[in-house]
Amino acid sequence: MSNKRIRLGMVGGGRDAFIGGVHRIAARIDDRFDLVAGALSSTPEKARASGEDLGLAADRIYDDYDAMAAKEADRDDGIEAVSVVTPNHMHFPAAKAFLMCGIHVICDKPLTSSLADAKALAEAAANSDALFILTHNYTGYPMIRQAREMVATGALGRLRVVQVEYAQDWLSADLEASGQKQAGWRTDPARSGAGGSTGDIGSHAFNLACFVTGLEVEELAADLDAFVPGRRVDDNGHVMLRFSGGAKGMLWCSQVAPGNENALRLRVYGEKGGLEWSQEDPNYLWYTPLGEPKRLLTRAGAGAGEAAARVSRIPGGHPEGYLEGFATIYNEAADAIQARRDGRPVPSECLYPTIADGVDGLRFIEGCVASSQANGTWIRLADL
Amino acid sequence: MSNKRIRLGMVGGGRDAFIGGVHRIAARIDDRFDLVAGALSSTPEKARASGEDLGLAADRIYDDYDAMAAKEADRDDGIEAVSVVTPNHMHFPAAKAFLMCGIHVICDKPLTSSLADAKALAEAAANSDALFILTHNYTGYPMIRQAREMVATGALGRLRVVQVEYAQDWLSADLEASGQKQAGWRTDPARSGAGGSTGDIGSHAFNLACFVTGLEVEELAADLDAFVPGRRVDDNGHVMLRFSGGAKGMLWCSQVAPGNENALRLRVYGEKGGLEWSQEDPNYLWYTPLGEPKRLLTRAGAGAGEAAARVSRIPGGHPEGYLEGFATIYNEAADAIQARRDGRPVPSECLYPTIADGVDGLRFIEGCVASSQANGTWIRLADL
Amino acid sequence: MSNKRIRLGMVGGGRDAFIGGVHRIAARIDDRFDLVAGALSSTPEKARASGEDLGLAADRIYDDYDAMAAKEADRDDGIEAVSVVTPNHMHFPAAKAFLMCGIHVICDKPLTSSLADAKALAEAAANSDALFILTHNYTGYPMIRQAREMVATGALGRLRVVQVEYAQDWLSADLEASGQKQAGWRTDPARSGAGGSTGDIGSHAFNLACFVTGLEVEELAADLDAFVPGRRVDDNGHVMLRFSGGAKGMLWCSQVAPGNENALRLRVYGEKGGLEWSQEDPNYLWYTPLGEPKRLLTRAGAGAGEAAARVSRIPGGHPEGYLEGFATIYNEAADAIQARRDGRPVPSECLYPTIADGVDGLRFIEGCVASSQANGTWIRLADL
Amino acid sequence: MSNKRIRLGMVGGGRDAFIGGVHRIAARIDDRFDLVAGALSSTPEKARASGEDLGLAADRIYDDYDAMAAKEADRDDGIEAVSVVTPNHMHFPAAKAFLMCGIHVICDKPLTSSLADAKALAEAAANSDALFILTHNYTGYPMIRQAREMVATGALGRLRVVQVEYAQDWLSADLEASGQKQAGWRTDPARSGAGGSTGDIGSHAFNLACFVTGLEVEELAADLDAFVPGRRVDDNGHVMLRFSGGAKGMLWCSQVAPGNENALRLRVYGEKGGLEWSQEDPNYLWYTPLGEPKRLLTRAGAGAGEAAARVSRIPGGHPEGYLEGFATIYNEAADAIQARRDGRPVPSECLYPTIADGVDGLRFIEGCVASSQANGTWIRLADL
Repeated sequence: MSNKRIRLGMVGGGRDAFIGGVHRIAARIDDRFDLVAGALSSTPEKARASGEDLGLAADRIYDDYDAMAAKEADRDDGIEAVSVVTPNHMHFPAAKAFLMCGIHVICDKPLTSSLADAKALAEAAANSDALFILTHNYTGYPMIRQAREMVATGALGRLRVVQVEYAQDWLSADLEASGQKQAGWRTDPARSGAGGSTGDIGSHAFNLACFVTGLEVEELAADLDAFVPGRRVDDNGHVMLRFSGGAKGMLWCSQVAPGNENALRLRVYGEKGGLEWSQEDPNYLWYTPLGEPKRLLTRAGAGAGEAAARVSRIPGGHPEGYLEGFATIYNEAADAIQARRDGRPVPSECLYPTIADGVDGLRFIEGCVASSQANGTWIRLADL
Repeated sequence: MSNKRIRLGMVGGGRDAFIGGVHRIAARIDDRFDLVAGALSSTPEKARASGEDLGLAADRIYDDYDAMAAKEADRDDGIEAVSVVTPNHMHFPAAKAFLMCGIHVICDKPLTSSLADAKALAEAAANSDALFILTHNYTGYPMIRQAREMVATGALGRLRVVQVEYAQDWLSADLEASGQKQAGWRTDPARSGAGGSTGDIGSHAFNLACFVTGLEVEELAADLDAFVPGRRVDDNGHVMLRFSGGAKGMLWCSQVAPGNENALRLRVYGEKGGLEWSQEDPNYLWYTPLGEPKRLLTRAGAGAGEAAARVSRIPGGHPEGYLEGFATIYNEAADAIQARRDGRPVPSECLYPTIADGVDGLRFIEGCVASSQANGTWIRLADL
Repeated sequence: MSNKRIRLGMVGGGRDAFIGGVHRIAARIDDRFDLVAGALSSTPEKARASGEDLGLAADRIYDDYDAMAAKEADRDDGIEAVSVVTPNHMHFPAAKAFLMCGIHVICDKPLTSSLADAKALAEAAANSDALFILTHNYTGYPMIRQAREMVATGALGRLRVVQVEYAQDWLSADLEASGQKQAGWRTDPARSGAGGSTGDIGSHAFNLACFVTGLEVEELAADLDAFVPGRRVDDNGHVMLRFSGGAKGMLWCSQVAPGNENALRLRVYGEKGGLEWSQEDPNYLWYTPLGEPKRLLTRAGAGAGEAAARVSRIPGGHPEGYLEGFATIYNEAADAIQARRDGRPVPSECLYPTIADGVDGLRFIEGCVASSQANGTWIRLADL
Repeated sequence: MSNKRIRLGMVGGGRDAFIGGVHRIAARIDDRFDLVAGALSSTPEKARASGEDLGLAADRIYDDYDAMAAKEADRDDGIEAVSVVTPNHMHFPAAKAFLMCGIHVICDKPLTSSLADAKALAEAAANSDALFILTHNYTGYPMIRQAREMVATGALGRLRVVQVEYAQDWLSADLEASGQKQAGWRTDPARSGAGGSTGDIGSHAFNLACFVTGLEVEELAADLDAFVPGRRVDDNGHVMLRFSGGAKGMLWCSQVAPGNENALRLRVYGEKGGLEWSQEDPNYLWYTPLGEPKRLLTRAGAGAGEAAARVSRIPGGHPEGYLEGFATIYNEAADAIQARRDGRPVPSECLYPTIADGVDGLRFIEGCVASSQANGTWIRLADL
């Protein structure tokens, strides 16, 4: 097959949705995909209207992902990949349906709404030839790639301390009571899963810390709260981490911290140096070799290496943002899918998170909940 | 005509070019254009190879923009708009060719390589039904729109002082001697025009100051230098500005300031308040109402108004960047072209720079050169 | 007695010491003290030479604090107050000697090297008419006073989350092996106490969080490490906090975080707003009222209130620093001592930390050690 | 004579004054001076009350600086140095009186209220054995010393561009009409001199640029404004600079820029690197070697050299501020005076500004006024 654009479908992401639109822009930026089919809403009229908004052919607008998987799999020009951008609890059945038809899955995070589902989905993926890409999109930022490369090549020496946090303020009040759609499902355990802030954003922080450090979290101890009266899931989480190899960490996630929009921050310290990064200013990476002045590495600037350059589009000083980082996940998904088309193995440069990261993410979420319920007892993630 | 994607061509932007790729991403982000034709290089083989890279149909890959204008104008499915992304000296003939065929032009800045060409092109545009969009892309940043709106609605009161600067460091050494393509044409007066840093980046700074303040520069006094031995155009410019209405300004542009990547900064002060913005951190706008604490306005955050919201895609704290700001120019170009399709006037919300801004930009460039040659004499731009 | 300068002595702070010199500058800045006596070193020759350096009269240079306390108490012109700036383990006997002679004590932190000593010293203080001032100097910064005032007056509403950290990097390697004096005693449990980073800097972070929030820490769970091989005290501490009233916190202290000099940071979030402050940039306080733009309050700038103004010396934009914050503790000590001279109660505006804060600090240190030894079990501080 | 504290007098600085109190703190910080005499106000009652506030002996409180100079010169224990901290127009007669009595003068800036006075005072100084120290206090900041050292030792290569600015907002409205004392004399040409913002703060910016670069300004072109209706001196100045050796600069001073407290910023760019510094965050110096990542040098941190260390008091990360920088001028004045006591030449490490810098400052002020009156004509400062 040639290197023509990949035929893409989407489940979820209709009118009023947030993350679906992000996925579509991300898929367009590097021009590797054509969106040609969708089951964009579970409400048939909304599915249809949303599909028309996007210029989909009438016969490729579905109101049921099972039907979509089956019919697209039957078409000669059927989709090769699908983006699953529903609320969390639908990730499992939707993704599974496409995996079983051999269609590659690009799935939003967290992987599922429960660890049991996550494990089941991992099994389904293991039994499918299709690829599974999990959009922990922050891993696509060039300076995160830079940080990962620096850790891997030893610039920091043996790691000691990891500080990671993701703070927001949009759920400081009882927004779910207002009928706001995003707040509604995210604070509903039936759709979101057992974790609130831990699932929605803590899982990103957890994934990012592991991605950059290359370490696994062996144990955690958590103290979770639902500060907003009546809220059914946590909106603030304090977590202590113990990594493989002896490094220690702290993770803070909060949706009730006024003054924070999407303040995902990562700091990693080793014997020989330290790194500091913030998602809201993603083109910068602070690097301090022990005993030397702090250096401000910039995307595409002096001091940025191969890993950052590979996922960077424009010159330094011209900021790339959230959408470009997200697009990098799609671009690497395209590289991987193209490799499959060509009968080649997935290139080692494709660093997108996979289903294994998704299972780890659910272990984190359910581990936090279990630890907090047990008054902060240390939980071994491998035991979950 | 429906709201189907606009058929777009491109002149320039082949392999090795920089800004053409940026235009293509910008055109894709909001999904309003299909790139279907191109004269991507003046070298035929490169034009062909570049066209194939982009998946253009063979019969729509041209090596001559005149031919492209003529043939596309003849096709039923011919391009409706063209992006002109060549070195400066080719903007005039290429843009004129398409204008004369009634094809809308989206042109990179500066408008032309001389004021005479600019005026001639403006005349051509006046005699054409086609639209003319000039990609002073920084005007597309949401917080620049916010700043403009705040000035316009009086948040700063009568303006007094404007400080604007655009500093880079990439031409600190004699890069043009190395054969680097971007440095080569930008420091060649035959291709770039009389201005070096003044033309390449000073013109952006000038445009941005005017865009945000709504004021015109009446007079300027300039002191230009070519610090790198042998350089034929200025690489540093110091300019004092006098605006209509009595405000005063300073403009600094430099390509020899180590530590600056694309440090475009604008500060505007009035009787009642001040604003500060930096392109490298574009999602922030500092606003100080006189006598109150400084406030950090963020794109899509509390305090951002209608003008910013209209050109913002994702939630606050998720940084949008250079490509999204550029895409906003394309998106508004699409709005304007769609209005033409529909027989409506161009919507007033379309704030993209036009050919008049381009002529003003050339007045700025040639005014700087003239003033500097006359030892900093004040030059009235209207006299040029 | 008039408002003449207060006669001050000093224990510790001889040649090679660090913090003694800081105390002396702090005592001079507001011109309320005359340093007239000292037992500046336990080594007689160094005590004498150090006293001469400072211009002390020969008969008021002591090599023994007990003798100094006794003799000064007998003099008509004897010292009214003493600064105790020795290594931690000497705070207790030295401070006690002066308290028993009715001489006011200004003591460096932590209060003592053990909780038992701290309680014994508190008892001694309770049985003395002398005042006890503990130099948790960061409480003297104007914007910390501002933060405390804002919390107290309800600007943040009910508090939910406190994030506090104090990170350094100077002990990333085995500096104590080099014979460096400061590293030597700080990593020696016999002189420093059971806590390393928890005692040296964690105690500051703990104190600052309590000072600003007005809350008590009821329980903590800690995970401490000595990352540098052979180190006998912790050099990194991760601590989860539970405050009275339901707020939760995290505290991180580290001396092995490359790129951090004295990065003491406090963030406080409540129902209605958030505050963020950093010691390295102390003239700024970020304040976000929920749903409004972030504001940058500056010392002596618009938005700073009475509490900050009272301890501020110069106009906004002219940075005050560490020494001025420290001087505020001395200035308030002088206010309190003057009140005693005049037979008045200590003014309520004097917010310097006292011996009770010192006992709490030792509870924090020993609580961290106990929790960490018990694998992060929650420890009730009131039980210690 | 021994190294006892230097006996110091003060002219000006009584109740309600601002800068006198700053000088007194600065003189105390390093404990090299005793303030023993003063003519603190031209109003006798205020002079007396102010002297009593400071604990001066009754017979050393003067209401007339001439009398003070004469009587103190006659005393065995008379003052060795005097601080002149009056409004500008009194600097000349007061300083001259002490110089003629052989008393060292520490004088606030600008040197005088006219260039003619400045030249006359320089002549008086040349005919006196006394030292003359001008408190352009910003030269005392450690990172300014670091910058100067780096320029001098070639870290930046040949200099090309200097950007300096000092922006405030406190005179954005007609504060002088309110009776505010500081605004009153600063906007009165009879007391302040011909320059408003140029004299009050532009002179600092000018001095700082020259101090750090080691270059002289040969020519300037200025555009000054008094934006506040009725104001008699400039409140905003735009100035282009031409330095000896070919470097170019821009200087902006403003007292009408809302959001700026004391925003003195200096940026220096050379062939090999760039430096950036801001007074409001004075413990940082940004240094970019061309082609390498930007580095954040910190006072007393890794990367700070001898020149910074010599004037630094406390460890890195503990901010020193405005008062410490000011104190360094006093400390170096003390070093110089001590050298005179000892019959030694003034040490070369004493970098305080002198009367020659003060004359240059008046050339700057009067040059700006002359240039602006001549519509921005270039003025050679050596011709004034």
